[in-house]
Amino acid sequence: MTQNDNRRSWIASANEHPDFPLQNLPLGIFSPVGGTPRGGVAIGEQVFDLKVATTTGLFEGEAADAARVAAGEDLNAFFALGANARRALRRQLQDLLAEGSPAQARLEALGAELLPAAADCQLHLPARIGDYTDFYVGIHHANNVGRLFRPDNPLLPNYKYVPIGYHGRASTVCVSGTPVHRPNGQTLPPGAEVPNFGPSKRLDYELELGIWIGQGNAMGDAIAIGEAEQHIAGYCLLNDWSARDLQAWEYQPLGPFLAKNFATSVSPWVVTAEALEPFRTAQPARPEGDPQPLPYLLDANDQARGAFDIQLEVLLQTAAMRERGQQPQRLALSNTQHMYWTVAQLVAHHAVGGCKLQPGDLFGSGTLSGPEADAFGSLLETTFGGKQPLSLANGEQRTFLESGDEVILRAWCEGEGRVRIGFGECRGRVL
Amino acid sequence: MTQNDNRRSWIASANEHPDFPLQNLPLGIFSPVGGTPRGGVAIGEQVFDLKVATTTGLFEGEAADAARVAAGEDLNAFFALGANARRALRRQLQDLLAEGSPAQARLEALGAELLPAAADCQLHLPARIGDYTDFYVGIHHANNVGRLFRPDNPLLPNYKYVPIGYHGRASTVCVSGTPVHRPNGQTLPPGAEVPNFGPSKRLDYELELGIWIGQGNAMGDAIAIGEAEQHIAGYCLLNDWSARDLQAWEYQPLGPFLAKNFATSVSPWVVTAEALEPFRTAQPARPEGDPQPLPYLLDANDQARGAFDIQLEVLLQTAAMRERGQQPQRLALSNTQHMYWTVAQLVAHHAVGGCKLQPGDLFGSGTLSGPEADAFGSLLETTFGGKQPLSLANGEQRTFLESGDEVILRAWCEGEGRVRIGFGECRGRVL
Repeated sequence: MTQNDNRRSWIASANEHPDFPLQNLPLGIFSPVGGTPRGGVAIGEQVFDLKVATTTGLFEGEAADAARVAAGEDLNAFFALGANARRALRRQLQDLLAEGSPAQARLEALGAELLPAAADCQLHLPARIGDYTDFYVGIHHANNVGRLFRPDNPLLPNYKYVPIGYHGRASTVCVSGTPVHRPNGQTLPPGAEVPNFGPSKRLDYELELGIWIGQGNAMGDAIAIGEAEQHIAGYCLLNDWSARDLQAWEYQPLGPFLAKNFATSVSPWVVTAEALEPFRTAQPARPEGDPQPLPYLLDANDQARGAFDIQLEVLLQTAAMRERGQQPQRLALSNTQHMYWTVAQLVAHHAVGGCKLQPGDLFGSGTLSGPEADAFGSLLETTFGGKQPLSLANGEQRTFLESGDEVILRAWCEGEGRVRIGFGECRGRVL
Repeated sequence: MTQNDNRRSWIASANEHPDFPLQNLPLGIFSPVGGTPRGGVAIGEQVFDLKVATTTGLFEGEAADAARVAAGEDLNAFFALGANARRALRRQLQDLLAEGSPAQARLEALGAELLPAAADCQLHLPARIGDYTDFYVGIHHANNVGRLFRPDNPLLPNYKYVPIGYHGRASTVCVSGTPVHRPNGQTLPPGAEVPNFGPSKRLDYELELGIWIGQGNAMGDAIAIGEAEQHIAGYCLLNDWSARDLQAWEYQPLGPFLAKNFATSVSPWVVTAEALEPFRTAQPARPEGDPQPLPYLLDANDQARGAFDIQLEVLLQTAAMRERGQQPQRLALSNTQHMYWTVAQLVAHHAVGGCKLQPGDLFGSGTLSGPEADAFGSLLETTFGGKQPLSLANGEQRTFLESGDEVILRAWCEGEGRVRIGFGECRGRVL
C-alpha cells in the first residue's frame, strides 16, 4: 500500500493534476456521451471506462473480477467486495496507466472510447444509498453552534463520550451539480408565538467529509474498532444543506427533519483509503481533562493512524460574480483533523448496538470547522448566527445564502515530496 | 369504494375471520413451501398467490396489469402504480373469491398451488424500504414522555404546529417474527458522570401505525394536502423498539440514534385504504385553545374523513407464560384516534420542503397511547419511567422487557353491522 510518488502516467493531464494523478484513481459512476451509466476511474482530465476495459479484457485475475463488478450501473456490489478486490484493481490500473506500461499502445488505440474527456461525461451518484447517517464530530462546530444556543455550556455532557449522529434522508442525496431548491417550511419569527410558513430565509451549507460504507454487517452484529477500516469503501465531500430557521423551530425534541432533508450534495468520485494512505495521521491529542474513549472505541492503531490530514475548502460564487466573470471566493479553509472521532470510531459506534450497515450506505462527518472564523464550515458560524454579515470581496454581503449562490466544496491532501491527491468538487447552486 | 358487508367468500375460513375476510384483501410478499418470494393476498387462513394467478390468466385488463406487477419479489412497483390499479385488482379479486363466483371451480381446481395455507408460507417485508421516517403524533404519548422530562411543560411549543418526525433506520426494519437483539450501548447510571457500556437494561416497545408510501414526488416538489391520500399505498402495525437508557444519554441534541436503530418490526400485510374506508372518521376536535393547522396542513375533506377508528392492542408473552402454556397478556388497548395529525397531514408536511418520497418508503405514526394507563403504548409510560413495575397476571413483574419476552401488536376495525377488518400481528421476541 505504500505510495510511489515518483511514478508518472503516460496520460499527460494526470501528471501535476491537482486532483486526479496516477496515485489517486478514485472510482465513480458516469455516462459517456450517448452511453448508459457505468463505473469509471478519474485520471487527470479523463475518465477510464471500466465497462470498455472489461469487455476489452484489459485486466487479469482478481482485478478482472473487481473491474467487472465495478463496471455496473452503481458501485454497491463493488463496495461489497471489500478492500482486497479494490487494491487488486488499483494495482493493475496503476500498471496499465504508468509511464512505460507495455499496454500503453493498446490502450491508446482505444482512444476516447476507453478514456473519454471528463468534461464530456455526466457524473452520477456512485451508489444506491441504503441509509444516510450524519454525524456531528467537528468539535469546533459543535462548540460554535452550542455557544449560540447555550453560551455557558456549549458542549453537552455526552459529546466527549458518544460520537453523536442521527439518521438523514437518503432519497435526497444528490450528486454535485444538482440544483438545490430553497425549502418551504415553518419558522418562528423572533418574539412571535405563532409560526409563519414560507421559503427558508436562513439557508446554509455545511462542509463535511463523506464516508462510503463497503462491506456490511448482519443485523445484531457489532463491528470491532480494529475491523472498522475494512468496512469503508472510500471518501467524498458532502454538503449538508441546512435551513437554519426551519431547524430552530422544529428540532426539539427529535432532531432536524425538514431543515435538512430537502437536499444533501456529494462529490461524485470515491477516493480510496489507498490513495489517502500517505496522509494518515495520529488522532489529535485530546485536550487535558478530556476522557479516554470507552474500550469499544479505542484501538492503538486507530489512535496512531486513524485520522487524516485532508484540507477542506468552501468557496462561494454569487450570481453577480458569475455575471462579472469573477472567480469563486474562498469562505473557509479547514481540515479533517478537526474531527473529534476517527471514521473507524464512527463505524464501530454505529454498529455497536447491532445496526446493520450495508454497502453503499453513506456517512457525513458533520461540519468540520476549525477554531478560527476563516475555517468555519457554515454561515451559521461565520456570521455568528446571522448577526454579523460577511462582506465579500466584490462588495456584496451575506448572512445566509441567496438565490443564485453556488457553493463549492473542495478537498485535497498534500505534503513535502508527496503527489497531491484531490477529491474534485462538490457544487450546488441555490435555485 | 363502498364496502359490501354482506358479501361472503367461498373460502370458508375467510368468513368471520378476525383479520382477513373478503372485505380486507391486504397485500404482502410471501414464499410458499419450496418457492421464491412473490406477491400474495391474505384471505382467511390462506394466501392467494398472485404469481400463480397471473400465469394462469385469472385477471383481465387493468387488474391483470396490476396483478402482474404485484406478483414480483417486492411491492415497490405495485405501490408506484397508485390507487386506480390497486382498486381494479381489488374489484376483480373480490369477484373471483366471492360466493357465487363463476370462477370458483376453476380456482378450486388449482388447489394449494393458488391458495396455500398461510401457516405454510414464509412472510417477508412487503417492500424494499427506501427511507423510514418515524413521527411523534400520539399526543398522549408526547404528553406522558414530556412529563417525565419536563413536568411543568410536557409539550414543547412546536408540537401543535409541526407534525414532529425524524428519520429512522431503514436497514433494520424487519418483518414480524424476526428475533430482536438487545442492543449494547452507552448509558449514564443515575448520579454518575461517566457512562457505562453494556446491554440496554431499559428495552421497550412502541405501539405504532405504519404507513406505506405509494406514488412518490420529485425532489423539490411538495404534495398538496388534498392529494396526500393518493400517495399512500396502505397501512401496517409497527413496533419501534427502543432502548430507553441509551436514548436518555445520546439523544441530545440531534435525536435518537442507537436507541432505535437496532430493530423496527412491522406486520407483513399491507391493509389498503379501500378496506379501511368504512372506518374513516373525522379528525378529533382539537381541544379548546389549540391552534388551527397552518393552511398547507388543512383540508376540509381531510378534517372530515382523514382519521381512522382502528383499535390497537399490545400483548406480552413472557418465557414463563410460554412454558406454562399461558396465553399472551394484554398490556394496552389504544386507538388511532389518538393521533394529533392525520396521515395526509404527515405526507403533506414531509414533502412540503421538497423532500422526495418514493414508493416503499415507510412512516411510523409514533407511539399511539390513550389518555389512561390501560392504553399506554410503551412500558416507559406504563411503568412511569420504570418507577412503578407492572404486575402480570401470572405473578411476574416488568419494568422493561426481559430476555425471552415476546411483544405482540394487533389491530382491527369493527363497528355495528360491519365486517371486522384486521391487520394480523406484529410479533418480536427479545433474544
